[in-house]
Amino acid sequence: MANSEGEFVKHIARRETDFSQWYTDVVLKTGMADYSDVRGCMVIKPYGYGVWELIQKEMDQRFKDTGHENAYFPLFIPESMLMKEAEHVEGFAPEVAWVTSCGSGEKLAERLAIRPTSETMIGSMYAKWIQSYRDLPMLMNQWCNVVRWEKSTRPFLRTSEFLWQEGHTAHETFEEAQQETMRMLEVYAEFAENVLAIPVIKGRKSEKEKFAGAYATYSMEAMMQDGKALQMGTSHNMATNFAKSYGIQYLSREGKLEYCNTTSWGTSTRMIGGLIMVHGDDRGLVLPPRVAPIQAVILPIAAHKPGVLEGVDGLLQKLKAAGIRARVDDSDQTAGWKFNQWEMKGVPMRIEVGPRDIEKGQVVIVRRDALDNKEFVPIQGVAQRVKTMLDEVHIGLLNKALVMRDTKTVDASDFETLREGVQHGFARALWCGDTACELAIKEKTQGGTTRNMPLGRHKPEGVCVHCGKKAEAVTYFAKAY
Amino acid sequence: MANSEGEFVKHIARRETDFSQWYTDVVLKTGMADYSDVRGCMVIKPYGYGVWELIQKEMDQRFKDTGHENAYFPLFIPESMLMKEAEHVEGFAPEVAWVTSCGSGEKLAERLAIRPTSETMIGSMYAKWIQSYRDLPMLMNQWCNVVRWEKSTRPFLRTSEFLWQEGHTAHETFEEAQQETMRMLEVYAEFAENVLAIPVIKGRKSEKEKFAGAYATYSMEAMMQDGKALQMGTSHNMATNFAKSYGIQYLSREGKLEYCNTTSWGTSTRMIGGLIMVHGDDRGLVLPPRVAPIQAVILPIAAHKPGVLEGVDGLLQKLKAAGIRARVDDSDQTAGWKFNQWEMKGVPMRIEVGPRDIEKGQVVIVRRDALDNKEFVPIQGVAQRVKTMLDEVHIGLLNKALVMRDTKTVDASDFETLREGVQHGFARALWCGDTACELAIKEKTQGGTTRNMPLGRHKPEGVCVHCGKKAEAVTYFAKAY
Repeated sequence: MANSEGEFVKHIARRETDFSQWYTDVVLKTGMADYSDVRGCMVIKPYGYGVWELIQKEMDQRFKDTGHENAYFPLFIPESMLMKEAEHVEGFAPEVAWVTSCGSGEKLAERLAIRPTSETMIGSMYAKWIQSYRDLPMLMNQWCNVVRWEKSTRPFLRTSEFLWQEGHTAHETFEEAQQETMRMLEVYAEFAENVLAIPVIKGRKSEKEKFAGAYATYSMEAMMQDGKALQMGTSHNMATNFAKSYGIQYLSREGKLEYCNTTSWGTSTRMIGGLIMVHGDDRGLVLPPRVAPIQAVILPIAAHKPGVLEGVDGLLQKLKAAGIRARVDDSDQTAGWKFNQWEMKGVPMRIEVGPRDIEKGQVVIVRRDALDNKEFVPIQGVAQRVKTMLDEVHIGLLNKALVMRDTKTVDASDFETLREGVQHGFARALWCGDTACELAIKEKTQGGTTRNMPLGRHKPEGVCVHCGKKAEAVTYFAKAY
Repeated sequence: MANSEGEFVKHIARRETDFSQWYTDVVLKTGMADYSDVRGCMVIKPYGYGVWELIQKEMDQRFKDTGHENAYFPLFIPESMLMKEAEHVEGFAPEVAWVTSCGSGEKLAERLAIRPTSETMIGSMYAKWIQSYRDLPMLMNQWCNVVRWEKSTRPFLRTSEFLWQEGHTAHETFEEAQQETMRMLEVYAEFAENVLAIPVIKGRKSEKEKFAGAYATYSMEAMMQDGKALQMGTSHNMATNFAKSYGIQYLSREGKLEYCNTTSWGTSTRMIGGLIMVHGDDRGLVLPPRVAPIQAVILPIAAHKPGVLEGVDGLLQKLKAAGIRARVDDSDQTAGWKFNQWEMKGVPMRIEVGPRDIEKGQVVIVRRDALDNKEFVPIQGVAQRVKTMLDEVHIGLLNKALVMRDTKTVDASDFETLREGVQHGFARALWCGDTACELAIKEKTQGGTTRNMPLGRHKPEGVCVHCGKKAEAVTYFAKAY
């Protein structure tokens, strides 16, 4: 690798050569996260946590705008409570961490599960709180940690403990629950595209891939640069399944005791893994501007020359006043070192200010996603230009991701095309919906799974790409994280 | 109790008669929290969580303004990691919940503690991250849940799981660590007074009461209406204690390998219990305006009359635009029912809008902390008046709490005065600092403990109020939550 790329870049693997190593290098070397001494648990370092805080802020506003309130439910779920919904238990039991004793050896009368998700706990409380239709809909969300004891883990993508939000709602009718399920899927997708600059495919999961205990699960799926899929969020309509197991009943408008229809929906720190794998390049991170903890880094050039530091400081104040997350790097490292450092950290733009720029009343802006282009911007109106440019970066990243995804997606009308397609990206094909067929496809494609059945399509005419039976739906297939 | 007080008020015990029952009634009946099916764990309901969100927002800004960054560390602490600091283990081991197995029965090779606090985990990471003085100071904070298996629990005040923030910092010298310890104590006290409207006493804890493993612990202590003390936050200077146990070392400016001096500081959802017990009255909650999820509730009177609902809606928009957290209650309950309901929920002010008010271009404002006074405010400039009035409510609550505390605080120059004083409030006395003496005082006063030794006082001349030995410091004594 060229010397000019500096010491940091040298340590990051190339995506083409080893995507997996590239990912790990980026996560660790940019200060997003670190391994801890607990198996499968990571530390989210300040730079990574800064991204999560911005994600939380954006999402939380959307949840509140759609009428939801935050609450907090216990970390522990008594074993008997977890066991009430049979399918749910079967799905989660293999991953549960159990608290069995406390203090200096006292054994608990009943084991406590660390929540892998909170349908059971929240369902139990809803059963207590909901009396009549006047209490409905009940619309809550919680931001918390959950634990799923995973065999193999990777920072952000799959860790034994992770941070997430889980929305839980209860409604009078199936239709209202379905509306809520779709509304939150839309909120997620809009967030992914407008905040993370990640285009997603919204659709329904297969019977095999749905949430344990749900009537139907919907997901948003994104393509990573290695062509694999990442499930970025799910929204479940439970119908009355959980209401029946936990006794969530209400007195209807007609005076009858009825079961509620419930939903749940969740997204997690996994999304951070997604934005790294969608936008990053061989120099490191490329952060989408709306969740970048630092949106613009200002680098003084020849800082000892008269006027430079004053100019830099004035610029910083201007940008901050305009609501831009800006920072000055006036450390005594070389300019080249700084360029590499901030590029690696994926700051959407750097602004160079030198003595000649001060003279000319301008600054030089270089976008992280287009390093070859320098833009000279008059110091008057620089904040407005930076704002616009941040939007341009966002749109640029989203379009680039869209093009990447389209390029790596094939329509497969025969099985060989599907098999070949999922080696490098997504394959879209007619499918019968049968679990046995799904398992056979996974086997024959070395890991190609159904991602989802995209929304907004009529039931197709035609036959399953694999088994030849009548097709149920157009379906996306891919290898997945 | 008078009928006019409505159905809600009737169910709340009176403070004078049974303060403890009053507290429980207020917490449960106002929707702040509820009991869960897990021993010692509560559910924080939306209204209570709304208060916590506002507390978090205010505190988090203060942490960032003083240079701290948020991060997230694992929930689990391996037993061997927890065991490295001897005093710390001794202090926390009796309260630790242990994870011993996962999945369908797999026993863990090493037990995992659910964090009771994170000095050990964060210390281990700091040991890895800190190399030289250039990495210092390291200033981090995390918002998370912690678990301390308590024998007897009460919502917000003492629960097996609670939410908190814990700051952890590392410095070159003892003096810098001490400065940080005091800086954060000041941040806490300023927050308590300016946001929660709770006056606090800042001081140093006794050797017996200090944090397990600390060199010195400082606290802020507030008086509840029953005269008991609530420790609302603590700030610890660990000196090199944890650095030595966890190997947190740095290469100094002189090229020598030195141990860091570390600090930690924490506040929790317990503060919500504090604001309930400081400000509440026999009608229910009285929320300090700066953390009230609803600052002003607007009640339409004779809503069917022309112009009322339009007037109410216009007012809501005005208040919201001014950044006031306002809400309209246009439910079909009676006005009396609504008055009681919102008084119980402690909303700082209600604004009544009726047909005659609309005619006169005015609204009627009633403050929660002064229900007998009605103020007629012209609709022009109402938002500005509401803002000012919220500040007035804040100041009013703070002063009332100050007067209450001063009234119930005695200076005890003899032991009988101290013994009598701690039955109803705080006693301030000269004390020798000896643990044996402290235990004897607790015994003889039926539970009076040292709260702290207030800052900013010279070492006194004189003798201990109890044992007659040379006095070390003026000390606050009280019964405590």
